[in-house]
Amino acid sequence: MANLTHINDQGAAHMVDVGDKRETQRVAVASGRVLMSAETLGLLRDNSFAKGDVLAVARIAGIQAAKKCADLIPLCHPLMLNAVEVSFELDEAAGAVNIEGRCKVSGKTGVEMEALTAVSVAALTIYDMCKAVDKAMIIDSVCLQEKQGGKSGDWIRQHD
Amino acid sequence: MANLTHINDQGAAHMVDVGDKRETQRVAVASGRVLMSAETLGLLRDNSFAKGDVLAVARIAGIQAAKKCADLIPLCHPLMLNAVEVSFELDEAAGAVNIEGRCKVSGKTGVEMEALTAVSVAALTIYDMCKAVDKAMIIDSVCLQEKQGGKSGDWIRQHD
Amino acid sequence: MANLTHINDQGAAHMVDVGDKRETQRVAVASGRVLMSAETLGLLRDNSFAKGDVLAVARIAGIQAAKKCADLIPLCHPLMLNAVEVSFELDEAAGAVNIEGRCKVSGKTGVEMEALTAVSVAALTIYDMCKAVDKAMIIDSVCLQEKQGGKSGDWIRQHD
Amino acid sequence: MANLTHINDQGAAHMVDVGDKRETQRVAVASGRVLMSAETLGLLRDNSFAKGDVLAVARIAGIQAAKKCADLIPLCHPLMLNAVEVSFELDEAAGAVNIEGRCKVSGKTGVEMEALTAVSVAALTIYDMCKAVDKAMIIDSVCLQEKQGGKSGDWIRQHD
Amino acid sequence: MANLTHINDQGAAHMVDVGDKRETQRVAVASGRVLMSAETLGLLRDNSFAKGDVLAVARIAGIQAAKKCADLIPLCHPLMLNAVEVSFELDEAAGAVNIEGRCKVSGKTGVEMEALTAVSVAALTIYDMCKAVDKAMIIDSVCLQEKQGGKSGDWIRQHD
Amino acid sequence: MANLTHINDQGAAHMVDVGDKRETQRVAVASGRVLMSAETLGLLRDNSFAKGDVLAVARIAGIQAAKKCADLIPLCHPLMLNAVEVSFELDEAAGAVNIEGRCKVSGKTGVEMEALTAVSVAALTIYDMCKAVDKAMIIDSVCLQEKQGGKSGDWIRQHD
Repeated sequence: MANLTHINDQGAAHMVDVGDKRETQRVAVASGRVLMSAETLGLLRDNSFAKGDVLAVARIAGIQAAKKCADLIPLCHPLMLNAVEVSFELDEAAGAVNIEGRCKVSGKTGVEMEALTAVSVAALTIYDMCKAVDKAMIIDSVCLQEKQGGKSGDWIRQHD
Repeated sequence: MANLTHINDQGAAHMVDVGDKRETQRVAVASGRVLMSAETLGLLRDNSFAKGDVLAVARIAGIQAAKKCADLIPLCHPLMLNAVEVSFELDEAAGAVNIEGRCKVSGKTGVEMEALTAVSVAALTIYDMCKAVDKAMIIDSVCLQEKQGGKSGDWIRQHD
Repeated sequence: MANLTHINDQGAAHMVDVGDKRETQRVAVASGRVLMSAETLGLLRDNSFAKGDVLAVARIAGIQAAKKCADLIPLCHPLMLNAVEVSFELDEAAGAVNIEGRCKVSGKTGVEMEALTAVSVAALTIYDMCKAVDKAMIIDSVCLQEKQGGKSGDWIRQHD
Repeated sequence: MANLTHINDQGAAHMVDVGDKRETQRVAVASGRVLMSAETLGLLRDNSFAKGDVLAVARIAGIQAAKKCADLIPLCHPLMLNAVEVSFELDEAAGAVNIEGRCKVSGKTGVEMEALTAVSVAALTIYDMCKAVDKAMIIDSVCLQEKQGGKSGDWIRQHD
Repeated sequence: MANLTHINDQGAAHMVDVGDKRETQRVAVASGRVLMSAETLGLLRDNSFAKGDVLAVARIAGIQAAKKCADLIPLCHPLMLNAVEVSFELDEAAGAVNIEGRCKVSGKTGVEMEALTAVSVAALTIYDMCKAVDKAMIIDSVCLQEKQGGKSGDWIRQHD
Repeated sequence: MANLTHINDQGAAHMVDVGDKRETQRVAVASGRVLMSAETLGLLRDNSFAKGDVLAVARIAGIQAAKKCADLIPLCHPLMLNAVEVSFELDEAAGAVNIEGRCKVSGKTGVEMEALTAVSVAALTIYDMCKAVDKAMIIDSVCLQEKQGGKSGDWIRQHD
C-alpha cells in the first residue's frame, strides 16, 4: 500500500534515510504562472524590453531559492545542485507570465522540490515587484513537468 | 500613470525607501491550495486524524518562511512580524488542501509578501511530504485575500 | 600529546583540512533532556495525546537545526546529511522529556555535532513552547551516546 | 488554568500575536556549563592563556546564534537585539566551563530564548573544538537565571 | 583615549549595548570598484547595453547582502533597513566598474556596515560572473564616503 | 571568443551546468588588506598582543563567510569545503592589515569565490570593530593570488 515516506512507523516526521541510494544524474523541470491584468503585463513587457529588471530579479530570486530548498522545506535533504535555470515567457493571450525552473544534480535524491521552489519564489518575486499596480495577481498551476533519474525512474506529466 | 515602484528612474531595481512611511498596524491574509488525487487526500486525512504530522510540519514550514521573506524576495524590507498563523482545510469535494496564511506587523510596510510566502512554502511542504505517492499534485490559486493598514488603505479580493 | 585540532600551530582557529579523509558511512547518536515540573509535563503529555503539536514542532526544529549545523558552529564542515531522526520520551518519574537525535552521512567528517545540535535545538524549542507556564525548566545532560565510522573508529558512551 | 500559549484553540501551533504588547526594556540572563575531563580543561586553559581562541570562537558563535534565534526556534518572534554578551569561567573544581549569556532588547517580546540559545551554541562550539580529545563532554544545566521587563514582570531563579 | 568599542573591559568581544541610543534617521554611502582589463570591461558594457544582466545580478546580490549584514559581521546589530540602492558606473579610462551603495534606516545604530557590505558583495558578484575571462580582476578602494545621523554626527570622506 | 559563462544564449543569467565536470582537488588563495591610520593599527596590535580578539573575530567571520558563499553570490554553486584558513599580518610600514584566505575542496567547481569572500568579510569585520576610532579605513587590493585544479588548470597572479 502507498505510504507517506516522511512519516515513520510511529507516525512521526523524519528525514528519510537515503544512505543506500545510488548517486545518479537527476533532472527536474517544474512550471507555474502568474496571472495578471493586461495593464500589469504591459508594464512588465515594456520594462522587460527596456532593461529586463523585473524578470532578471525574479530569475535570481528563483535560482537562489533553489539553493535554499533544504532550509525552507523541513524534511528535504541538502544537496549540491549542478545547474539551475529559470526562464519566463509572457503569454498575453492568457494574461500570464509563464515560469519554468530546471534543476540538475548528481546525487542520492531528486531535485523536484528545488525546481518547484525556484518557480514559486520567482512567482512571488514577480508579485512583489508588480503589487503596487495589481494586488489581484494569482500564482497558479505550480507543478512538476518532468523528472529523470533515481530509482523510481522517469516521470512526465500527462496532459489530457 | 501606474508604475513599478521597485524600478527607479534609471530602470534599475532598488529597495524602495520607506523611511517616511508611518508605522501602522498591518494585516494580510493570503490563501492557496494543493490539488491532489482522492487517494493522496485520504492518506493525508488519515495521518492527520491520527497524528497531524504532515500538516503540523507544513504549518511550521509556512510560519518559518514568513520570517525568511526578506531573505527570499530580493526587494522586500526586513520587518518584525507580530503574529503568523497558517491553517488548513481538507476539501474532499475539490480534491484539495486549502491553506490560509495570516500575518500581522506594526511597521512601515505591509505583510502581503509574508502571508503569500507562508502559503507557498506550506504548499511546497505538503507536496514534498506526499510526492512519493503523487507527483502530479498542483499548487494553485495562491493569492492575496485581504490587507489592512498602510497608506494605500484596505483591500479585499473581489469574487465574482 | 593530545591537541585541539581546530587550533593550528600559530594558535589560530581554522577549519581543519579533511581533503585526505575517506568518505565512509558515519552515524552519531546524541541525547539530552528537559527537566520540568510535573504540571508542565502533564500539559505536554495531554497536548501530545491530542495533537502532538509541541513535540512535532520540536522535532522539526531539531531536524532543521541539524541541517544548519555548519552555519551555527563556526569550524564545522558543511556536509550532506543522509538521514536525521529526533525522538522524544516522556519520563514522568524523572520529570523530564528525554530527547534523542540520530544523524547519518556518507562523508569525510563525522556527524556528532549535527546530532548534538538537533538535540539542543529540540530542547530549546520545548522550552520556548512551555515557558509561559514554567520558566524554571533546565536543559540537561546533552551528550554524545555513540558514533560509528571514520578513522578514529566507533565510540560508545561508558555508563557507570 | 495554565495554558501552552503557542498552541491555539484548535490545538495548532502558531506564532502568538504580540501586536498589543508594549515595547519595554527587556533583559534575560541564561547560564549553562560544559563538563569535561581535567585534561581537556587543562588544554582549554593553556590555549586560553596563550591566545584565547577556543573561548573567543565560542563567544562569537554564541553571539551570532542569539541573532539567529527566530530562525532556529520556529515560533520565536524576530527582534532587534540591543546587546549580547557571552562570558566564560573555568571551574577546575567542578571540571567545567561555566557559560553565561546576557541579552537586551527594547521590544514586545522577551529575550529568554536568545540568551538560552547563545549559551547552548557557545557550549556546542566548545564541544566541537575539544571533541578530538574528549568525546564524553556533557552540556549541562542550561537554564534561565533572570529576566526583567514585560507584562509578566521580573523573574529570578530560586536556588535551594 | 580612543578605544575599540567592540572589546569590553576584560578584552572580550561583545555586541555593544545600544539600548540607550536614540532612534534617528541614518544614512550611509559607501563605494568601491572592480579593476579589470579593457577586454572584460568591453564584454560587460556590451552585455550591459543588451540586457543588463551582469550588473542586474550584482545589484540584487548587493541589496540582499545589505540585509544579511548582521549575519555576516559577528558584532553587528540586526536592523530594519528602510532603503538600499546599489548603482554602477563603467569607467573605461580607469578600467573599472565603480560601485556605490546607499542605505537608510531609522534606528539606534548606523548603516555603514550595510553599505560597505552591499558594495563588497556586488563587487564579488561581478568578479564571479566575469572570472571565466579575467581572473586577475581586483576589488579596490572599498570605503565609506559619507554618513549622516547618530550621536557621533555626520561624516564625509576628505579627499586630498 | 571570450564569453561571460553565467549569461546564456538568450542573455539571461543562469547557474552554469557543472554536471559533466570531474571532481578534482581544488585550492584557491586570495588576499586583500585594510588600510588604516597608524593609531588604529596600534590599537589593533596592542589588543592583538593581549587577547587577539579583533583578529580572532575577523578570522571566524571570514571562515563562516566562505561557507555562506553560495548564499551570497547568486550564481555560485553550493559546495562542501574541505578546509578554510584565514590569516593576518600587521604591516606597519604600509599602515595595513594584510589578509590571506585559503580554501580547499574536492569538487566540480573551483573555490576562488569562497577564498575571495572569506577575505572580504574578514576585512569588513576588521572595519566594523575599529570604525569607532577610524571611519576612513579602506579595503583594498582584494584579489586572487593562486588557484589549483580544475579543467582550466593552475593560475598564479603575475606581479610586475
